[in-house]
Amino acid sequence: MSLSPAVTDTIYMQRAIRLARKGRYSTSPNPRVGCVIVKNQKVVGEGYHIAAGGPHAEVHALKAAGANAQGATAYVTLEPCSHFGRTPPCAQALIKAKVARVVIAMQDPNPQVAGRGNKMLEEAGIEVVSGVLEAQAKALNPGFIKRMLTGLPYVRVKLGATQDGKTALANGQSKWITGAAARADVQDWRAQSCAVLTGRGTVSADDPSLLVRPEQWAQMGRDKELLKDLKQPLRVVLDRQAQLTPDFQMMQDGSPTLLISQKNYSEQNWPQSVSRTKLVADGQLKPILEHLAAKGINEVLVEAGATLAGAFVEQGLADELILYQADKLIGADGRNLLNHDALTRMEQVPVLSCVDRRQIGEDTRSIYRMS
Amino acid sequence: MSLSPAVTDTIYMQRAIRLARKGRYSTSPNPRVGCVIVKNQKVVGEGYHIAAGGPHAEVHALKAAGANAQGATAYVTLEPCSHFGRTPPCAQALIKAKVARVVIAMQDPNPQVAGRGNKMLEEAGIEVVSGVLEAQAKALNPGFIKRMLTGLPYVRVKLGATQDGKTALANGQSKWITGAAARADVQDWRAQSCAVLTGRGTVSADDPSLLVRPEQWAQMGRDKELLKDLKQPLRVVLDRQAQLTPDFQMMQDGSPTLLISQKNYSEQNWPQSVSRTKLVADGQLKPILEHLAAKGINEVLVEAGATLAGAFVEQGLADELILYQADKLIGADGRNLLNHDALTRMEQVPVLSCVDRRQIGEDTRSIYRMS
Repeated sequence: MSLSPAVTDTIYMQRAIRLARKGRYSTSPNPRVGCVIVKNQKVVGEGYHIAAGGPHAEVHALKAAGANAQGATAYVTLEPCSHFGRTPPCAQALIKAKVARVVIAMQDPNPQVAGRGNKMLEEAGIEVVSGVLEAQAKALNPGFIKRMLTGLPYVRVKLGATQDGKTALANGQSKWITGAAARADVQDWRAQSCAVLTGRGTVSADDPSLLVRPEQWAQMGRDKELLKDLKQPLRVVLDRQAQLTPDFQMMQDGSPTLLISQKNYSEQNWPQSVSRTKLVADGQLKPILEHLAAKGINEVLVEAGATLAGAFVEQGLADELILYQADKLIGADGRNLLNHDALTRMEQVPVLSCVDRRQIGEDTRSIYRMS
Repeated sequence: MSLSPAVTDTIYMQRAIRLARKGRYSTSPNPRVGCVIVKNQKVVGEGYHIAAGGPHAEVHALKAAGANAQGATAYVTLEPCSHFGRTPPCAQALIKAKVARVVIAMQDPNPQVAGRGNKMLEEAGIEVVSGVLEAQAKALNPGFIKRMLTGLPYVRVKLGATQDGKTALANGQSKWITGAAARADVQDWRAQSCAVLTGRGTVSADDPSLLVRPEQWAQMGRDKELLKDLKQPLRVVLDRQAQLTPDFQMMQDGSPTLLISQKNYSEQNWPQSVSRTKLVADGQLKPILEHLAAKGINEVLVEAGATLAGAFVEQGLADELILYQADKLIGADGRNLLNHDALTRMEQVPVLSCVDRRQIGEDTRSIYRMS
């Protein structure tokens, strides 16, 4: 029995998307891309992009397919590139390998190059089909796409609170509001983020690492294999008054940290891994996000206190809220989840769109899409 | 194929429990009880207690069974009564009908009479088996059992809040935090409660009815048939300073309301349905609950503002919290879910036991067992 081309296209594209997902902890600043090459209803080659500077997904797949690529169909989750970057254009590689047909999930999100790869293929006489499982392919790269379209990264704000919306006791104690499983779950968000952003207050109070901790990864029951290519996130600390010193864990562990302040830091013995940027933004977060996007940061995870987290929501810069809630009650005196301006009418209260809610250990996790 | 007696006992007791549940909106102050009479593996009679003053479950079932009761097994969710109350003792009725065997789920919770019904049956030569599906049978009557054991009713505190734990805007606006489905769902809790308790502030601000509204019942998709025997809950209002007047909906609708104050009310034109009790309790809720239990109130639903609701939690008098949460964020300025004393160490924060969590329309409902 033979399936209709529309069905087989969907099946193989799904496979390419699964492959692309394997790159989700490592491709930054590049997008996650997967490729499957099929000839006579058999997969003859497949691959995914692992890391910037390394081969693109198409190159891996074509290499695996060898001579079988001739006359085959290539399924790619993103339009093949048409320009010479760190690697030669993939559209040319497909032409050279003489594939007969290319099915893509989505065009290049960069409006300045979108369609060029497809055009190059079509001009070489290759049949191009576009838009298969487009929404799923877009979900692979929310940050890359947003950065290409708007010059801003995709921002997730992680929040932890009690069921009565408190993040700490009145005296600031908060260890631990949420349980070990929730803390382990956060590792996955860090791992897929290009940057983890926090404020000076959190660094001073908790001296956190904000890196992915492999031992918590194992605790999550996730595939450790995926960590082998892990690119640890850049730590970004907003430190307006340039108060921080090199005496914190994240300055000393050798992994990159970026301090953003409105003043110059005093001369101190700063480790090489710590960069410092002066950026006068007057409480506005958009210039900071633009700065990060310009550095190739696609996805930012905000792990900050209520004031900074609230500012992202308030300034309309949070794309997603990830809210972990413990089955606890702290009462009115506790610290609040979000500080934002007082509202005077119920109609002004933002109604959130919950896209996922589940139990994570003893806590509940709700994901809200804000944009 | 014949099933083992243990299995058939469980099956028929389950049926008796389902029957008992039919009385959950009407039996107060009596317990919900179901009875099934089985002879030669056939149900020959069944019934449940509908309302105080009317026949007990066993009487309904025996009447339906007629002569078939002789030599049969009777399944009863609660030990048959042994005393003359408004009706003759059911244990005697079972003896008179010459049943051969009585299976009960639980003993009478009143320690002063527990076991007497069983003893009466055994002395008449009837085989008695006790404890079949006991936990399920206890769940039918949390209020009746608690009242018999402790002289206090079972207290459910209903709360509605945003995901950040706010019940209203800073200016007090709260219509509506939760959606229509959540408000309809509350009807079921009211219907199974003997009393709905609130504070003067809520009455002054909202002029609520707090009765079960049949139109919302239909909206829930619940069986309207169950409402035919509905006993509307007594409205109980805590009005310490005796400030309320007869000018409120709940005073005028003819359904009973009880005002509890520490002062005498001024002479006004109070409708007959409004009773007034002076009870000096100094902010303590236990004497108020004892007073209600003494009036035969088994289950109390607290629908009050943050201060009163918090006081029930704080004083350890809430057996259950029913928390409806909307996917909204009000921010720090909003009114808090619960006011209770400031805590200074995370270990003091009460960890709640969530026994049920589900989506109700656009809101989440969590049920916490506190006792």
